[in-house]
Amino acid sequence: MLFRKELIFSTNCREDLIDITSEINSAIRESTIKSGVCNIYVPHATSGVIVNENDDPNIIHDVLGVLRKLAPKGSFLHDKIDGNGDAHVKSAIVGPSESIPFENSRLLLGTWQSVMLCEFDGPKQSRKVIITLID
Amino acid sequence: MLFRKELIFSTNCREDLIDITSEINSAIRESTIKSGVCNIYVPHATSGVIVNENDDPNIIHDVLGVLRKLAPKGSFLHDKIDGNGDAHVKSAIVGPSESIPFENSRLLLGTWQSVMLCEFDGPKQSRKVIITLID
Amino acid sequence: MLFRKELIFSTNCREDLIDITSEINSAIRESTIKSGVCNIYVPHATSGVIVNENDDPNIIHDVLGVLRKLAPKGSFLHDKIDGNGDAHVKSAIVGPSESIPFENSRLLLGTWQSVMLCEFDGPKQSRKVIITLID
Repeated sequence: MLFRKELIFSTNCREDLIDITSEINSAIRESTIKSGVCNIYVPHATSGVIVNENDDPNIIHDVLGVLRKLAPKGSFLHDKIDGNGDAHVKSAIVGPSESIPFENSRLLLGTWQSVMLCEFDGPKQSRKVIITLID
Repeated sequence: MLFRKELIFSTNCREDLIDITSEINSAIRESTIKSGVCNIYVPHATSGVIVNENDDPNIIHDVLGVLRKLAPKGSFLHDKIDGNGDAHVKSAIVGPSESIPFENSRLLLGTWQSVMLCEFDGPKQSRKVIITLID
Repeated sequence: MLFRKELIFSTNCREDLIDITSEINSAIRESTIKSGVCNIYVPHATSGVIVNENDDPNIIHDVLGVLRKLAPKGSFLHDKIDGNGDAHVKSAIVGPSESIPFENSRLLLGTWQSVMLCEFDGPKQSRKVIITLID
């Protein structure tokens, strides 16, 4: 059996991590699948998916700070094309997807885990997240 | 069809990679599913999953050394809360999950590949790994 | 239902990203599964899988440049064994797998996304990529 849903998010600044856990759990509750694996996929080459803590908002800044140090804006060959080489590199390293088990219609996240959409080249009006449930 | 099993591991130092390949293959043999994809998920925000060589134990130290250089202990905003900002950043970049094909009740790993639980904020008495098999 | 196919690629230099999107879409078309999740798995400890843009070939060099800065060749304990410690570290951080949804027998990639096999210790005559489709 298969359930698929597309979620849309808008982003407000160039770089951000946006907590999308509750929207994913809502999508899971809409389906008739109670237990399985949830594939979360972002079809954009300058964004990604991270799972980590969102209770202390400083962690978002700590993660973005390390990624900025790793891939500093303005230092890439691709910047001659459209100035976002750093965003592609961050996206490539973070990756576009996570697969997370769910049970009783809820992601089996740890207490301190949230699913976060990573924006590396915002703001953008429409960032898609494709949810696919498999059992 | 779906098979799920929770494995528990204890960790002995602050940072370590622990080979969990044989425990995962044992879980696969307990199920009736012979061939499919095995999702390995760690529900902790200061740990992760890596697949790499464990024949030369130096590789563990090489990987941990690069992650320490990338996210040095004591340099993060979150450290004011509980001193483990570096562990969250390492966990966010490494990621909590891998999905690996299996056949004849065995992971289709390469000769030099092992599945390793990453501890970034140990020692901990109980680190969970959730195994889900899908076919 | 399950469909599995092994693809083989040869690589021409020490480090490269090789676009394998069309070969994966061909494998999907060979199966009778129209919609599901495609697991792409590389069973090698010195390679990996990345999803990003391949329209501007500079992005490949930008990504490889950042990975080289992160894990410089010749600076690892494992180098005493066979001189490719940097390749293992890059492989461990990039990861051996991606899981991507597909529909109408095609990967649901974004406009600027390609699936790329990462070579970090080439050239190699035979790099395997295991494709598993699940619905």
